[in-house]
Amino acid sequence: MNDRSQLKKYIELMACAMRQDSIAMTTAAGSGHPTSALSAVDIIATLFLYAMKFDPDNFDNPDNDKFILSKGHASPALYAMWHQLGKISDQELMTYRQFSSTLEGHATPRFAYTTVATGSLGMGLSMGAGQALTALKDGRSYKVFVLLGDGETAEGQIWEAAEIAAHYKLSNLIAIVDCNRLGQSEPTMDEWDVQRYAAKFSTFGWKTAVVDGHDVEQLMDVYDKVLDSSAQPMVIIAKTIKGKGIEQIENKQGFHGKSFSRQQADEYLKPLKQLYTTIHKELASTYKWQPTIPKSVRGILSNTSLQNVDIGPDYVVGQKIATRKVYGQALAACGDLLPTLLCLDGEVKNSTFADIFENAHPDRFIQCYIAEQNMVGMAIGMACIGFIPFVSTFGAFFSRAYDQIRMAAINRAPLRLCGSHAGVSIGEDGPSQMALEDIAMMNAIPDSVILYPSDGVSTWALVQEMSNYNKAISYVRTTREDTPVLYPIDEKFHIGGCKVLRSSTQDVVCVIGAGITLHQALQAYTTLVQEDIHISVIDLYSVKPFDVETVRATIKNSYSRCITVEDHYIPGGIGNIIAAHLCDDAINFTMLGVTHIPRSGKPEELRAWAGIDAASIVKTVKSLL
Amino acid sequence: MNDRSQLKKYIELMACAMRQDSIAMTTAAGSGHPTSALSAVDIIATLFLYAMKFDPDNFDNPDNDKFILSKGHASPALYAMWHQLGKISDQELMTYRQFSSTLEGHATPRFAYTTVATGSLGMGLSMGAGQALTALKDGRSYKVFVLLGDGETAEGQIWEAAEIAAHYKLSNLIAIVDCNRLGQSEPTMDEWDVQRYAAKFSTFGWKTAVVDGHDVEQLMDVYDKVLDSSAQPMVIIAKTIKGKGIEQIENKQGFHGKSFSRQQADEYLKPLKQLYTTIHKELASTYKWQPTIPKSVRGILSNTSLQNVDIGPDYVVGQKIATRKVYGQALAACGDLLPTLLCLDGEVKNSTFADIFENAHPDRFIQCYIAEQNMVGMAIGMACIGFIPFVSTFGAFFSRAYDQIRMAAINRAPLRLCGSHAGVSIGEDGPSQMALEDIAMMNAIPDSVILYPSDGVSTWALVQEMSNYNKAISYVRTTREDTPVLYPIDEKFHIGGCKVLRSSTQDVVCVIGAGITLHQALQAYTTLVQEDIHISVIDLYSVKPFDVETVRATIKNSYSRCITVEDHYIPGGIGNIIAAHLCDDAINFTMLGVTHIPRSGKPEELRAWAGIDAASIVKTVKSLL
Repeated sequence: MNDRSQLKKYIELMACAMRQDSIAMTTAAGSGHPTSALSAVDIIATLFLYAMKFDPDNFDNPDNDKFILSKGHASPALYAMWHQLGKISDQELMTYRQFSSTLEGHATPRFAYTTVATGSLGMGLSMGAGQALTALKDGRSYKVFVLLGDGETAEGQIWEAAEIAAHYKLSNLIAIVDCNRLGQSEPTMDEWDVQRYAAKFSTFGWKTAVVDGHDVEQLMDVYDKVLDSSAQPMVIIAKTIKGKGIEQIENKQGFHGKSFSRQQADEYLKPLKQLYTTIHKELASTYKWQPTIPKSVRGILSNTSLQNVDIGPDYVVGQKIATRKVYGQALAACGDLLPTLLCLDGEVKNSTFADIFENAHPDRFIQCYIAEQNMVGMAIGMACIGFIPFVSTFGAFFSRAYDQIRMAAINRAPLRLCGSHAGVSIGEDGPSQMALEDIAMMNAIPDSVILYPSDGVSTWALVQEMSNYNKAISYVRTTREDTPVLYPIDEKFHIGGCKVLRSSTQDVVCVIGAGITLHQALQAYTTLVQEDIHISVIDLYSVKPFDVETVRATIKNSYSRCITVEDHYIPGGIGNIIAAHLCDDAINFTMLGVTHIPRSGKPEELRAWAGIDAASIVKTVKSLL
Repeated sequence: MNDRSQLKKYIELMACAMRQDSIAMTTAAGSGHPTSALSAVDIIATLFLYAMKFDPDNFDNPDNDKFILSKGHASPALYAMWHQLGKISDQELMTYRQFSSTLEGHATPRFAYTTVATGSLGMGLSMGAGQALTALKDGRSYKVFVLLGDGETAEGQIWEAAEIAAHYKLSNLIAIVDCNRLGQSEPTMDEWDVQRYAAKFSTFGWKTAVVDGHDVEQLMDVYDKVLDSSAQPMVIIAKTIKGKGIEQIENKQGFHGKSFSRQQADEYLKPLKQLYTTIHKELASTYKWQPTIPKSVRGILSNTSLQNVDIGPDYVVGQKIATRKVYGQALAACGDLLPTLLCLDGEVKNSTFADIFENAHPDRFIQCYIAEQNMVGMAIGMACIGFIPFVSTFGAFFSRAYDQIRMAAINRAPLRLCGSHAGVSIGEDGPSQMALEDIAMMNAIPDSVILYPSDGVSTWALVQEMSNYNKAISYVRTTREDTPVLYPIDEKFHIGGCKVLRSSTQDVVCVIGAGITLHQALQAYTTLVQEDIHISVIDLYSVKPFDVETVRATIKNSYSRCITVEDHYIPGGIGNIIAAHLCDDAINFTMLGVTHIPRSGKPEELRAWAGIDAASIVKTVKSLL
């Protein structure tokens, strides 16, 4: 036999072994999705052992081809592959889904050979598109292979990714659809209509091929075609059988997400073991699989250090500038320092002012059009390979990508997000465009950072802080309106900090604002002080984490009275966050914020309507005395 | 001239008037999107005046054809249409975007002629699909016309809706893409490649047509084709010009979302006024447009009253049953009583137990496959025409539809949502499948209701409550595991209530649980009482609103010490919600909940890891003494 046919035999052998692994490990676990793994093992084995260039001994090699298991519940197949590659011991494999194991039900970064964590369906293609696009930007030649379930192509995010991949001519992105016909509870919409799948991807601008997903020869042939030079992503529609390899349950409903009893497993494993022996005999005893190690490339971005040209902002106290605009300016400056900083925007760059970054660094600006799920998904992919993506859109529209933000946290991907157009203060465009749940949403994500600066100097400083912060997701909330600069340019700001802007020994209430409402609080101070009523005023520019000790002490020095004022719904907002930390202290809290669905109107009218303007603060302060 | 050519002239006249309206009202407002309206007016005028059967004097007629403006920022065109139909006065039109006006920047239900509120792009087609499907179920013959922007077809939700509309053969759903080539900040991906748009919809199973979107004759001809009898939805790709009618800015970038100065407006209005005069002269002086009033139909569902056969649950105290299963059983029973109750599920019906409803009422069960955005979008459409959709999926996956839930609130659509598989207690599947942000997310929505029952009897009662609750969005959180029934079948539960399950005069701490953690709290009670440590235990089955007075009084009677214990991230969870309401009281709060990204493992291991099991409660109680 020639090398290719030996290799084919070897792949078939490994696929057979992976089937056994998939059954054994899910039976040991007492749960899991063996049938979803069984439909995918031939595809994965042929990918890893034939198509992909990678170094199994150096998974972090930036030039490795990448594999993303978008249908994350088929994790047994992934673990089985790494078991067969010698990176998971026999013993460890049997710890699948146990608390002490890194082999989770859906692979996470706790397992060292995870490219990206998946598990919420329909996200892998976006993550892969992000990594494929990064390869092009970074001058690397790796490919990204994404294995999709057929059912998950119902997720719109798949088509967002398909569109963007074609638009950016990501010829290094290859999707494989494991078309096994059966979903969790019933057949998929398109069942085995493989031509329909192909036609859909084709009209979205992809090269397509249809194969038998259990025929290694066909898979090898089609992977050869991946190498051609057309500037298109490629999808392989692989017709497969759910439960393939267990005759009794092949293509039968009712077996999704069900592990087998020991007795069943023994019965199902028997013919697979026989098959293994048969194939093994056909393989030359001297045959030894060798990985194809990729050529090492010097990355354009990832191996560049830029000059430290921190010019800093040149704003003057009292000057009016919108914090959203400062975001763009500061980000452009951060881009001067950090070559791996990328900026993704959702077709609102002239509103978020991401266009300032685009003008400064056009090669590192990525227009993601009106498709927020894919935008955040791409950013996850980029962050997971060490790049620094900033993602900006209207704060309201991050709600479109909350599942993706949640998955970013599971990926330990330190996304940097900028949400503009916070609150009712955007005015006339009306409630659909107002970010009013964004703080609540971001707050629930473990270890997240929420920043809400009120002026140009603090915004600049905090965007810089974010660019250096890689422990978790960080979010900066910006304001549409121009607001006066409050701080001198050398003022320092940090994650977890705050500024006590007004305080005296006579303070009767502490008013805490952030962003637009800080200016209202300062106005209220001016009004009240003329009536000889003194209040302390805190700029809570870092909402999470916040400076609990300074806030507590300032409130205590203000007769233990606190008014929080925010352009956000009260449930889950700034007042709630502070109260959750200071609820044990005997503090008299009053929370001013938005309580009803807003409407169109002038910003100042809406702030008055919501009771978050200076006049409302003045009135509330007086009511407490 | 014959009638058709007279009508055509009249439509052209109205389109010309609508152009003038669109310019005038945005200039009066000083903001808005005139150019996006100008590309759409011919499409809308021909729709309303030729294609649609509706009674302008009875907008709520259930048999009216429906119009959804998915590109909601083109609202001037919508208001201009109703102005020309005599339903908005000249004076009112000029109040556009003012605080006192119902004519908001994006139309909301505050404007009486709004089918559904839009404004977050890419949602209208789902809402339309929901209404089109409801027509088929209800035996009505209305059609639903949805006007899409070209840019918004980048949103994946469009393709989720496209897929489902073809799957359910919604021949009464007609989409029109206003293909004006220019997005907000740059050209769209496909610009004027109208054939590509058509091809994409075609492979998704739609009939397609391409027309000049400013040619009324062509539009009339294509709307005629809508009436043919094929069992497919239809899309019309209308090639249009952004800013059409203002020669100086037609098809030019830089004019998105910009109103004109009075001087500019005067200049732009001049030729339009001349054109109006010219067309008006060509129209017979006797011509009078008449609406085509739809035939009145007796709805199958909406005019049926079912027998009140409230059999109630038959659970026995101590019996073990999962609350998710009870959801399915209770919903099936509610379906017996309410003919307009529909159930939508995201291909997890055998996990959420929505399949129990399906078995009882197959005609009112709608499989939405793995596409949560479209599922919630369809439910909004259904709720806005008076149906009672319940939507169920894993609680974690409602994060995929948070923008849609936000828009449901703006629509004042009382969605009923059921999120199963709450918290780390799902165990081995791992963090991607665990709902841990859902309470925080739902809490931020104004007026939302959050229910989290712990046993079968309370779940049954609360699902019934939800089916009768139409003031706002309600959410019930269910548990994967079987839990023992705690209450006798005649126990009463209501939105805003709670149960004090353990209390004595010797209580030293009040422990508040809900759902799975209530059972842990009760176990802790049993352990502690043996050591003569008495705690009060509250079942907070209604998390929002919650019974502030009972909770406060019970805590006060327990030495003002409170431990909340929840299977949810602490930020934004139950403890935070309680603290936000009771922060003024001198209460010693301890919040037990999830603080880090979880992993796979056994439910009890994970609860121990998170510190939310009975042992952790016992330990915490003792630490407070």
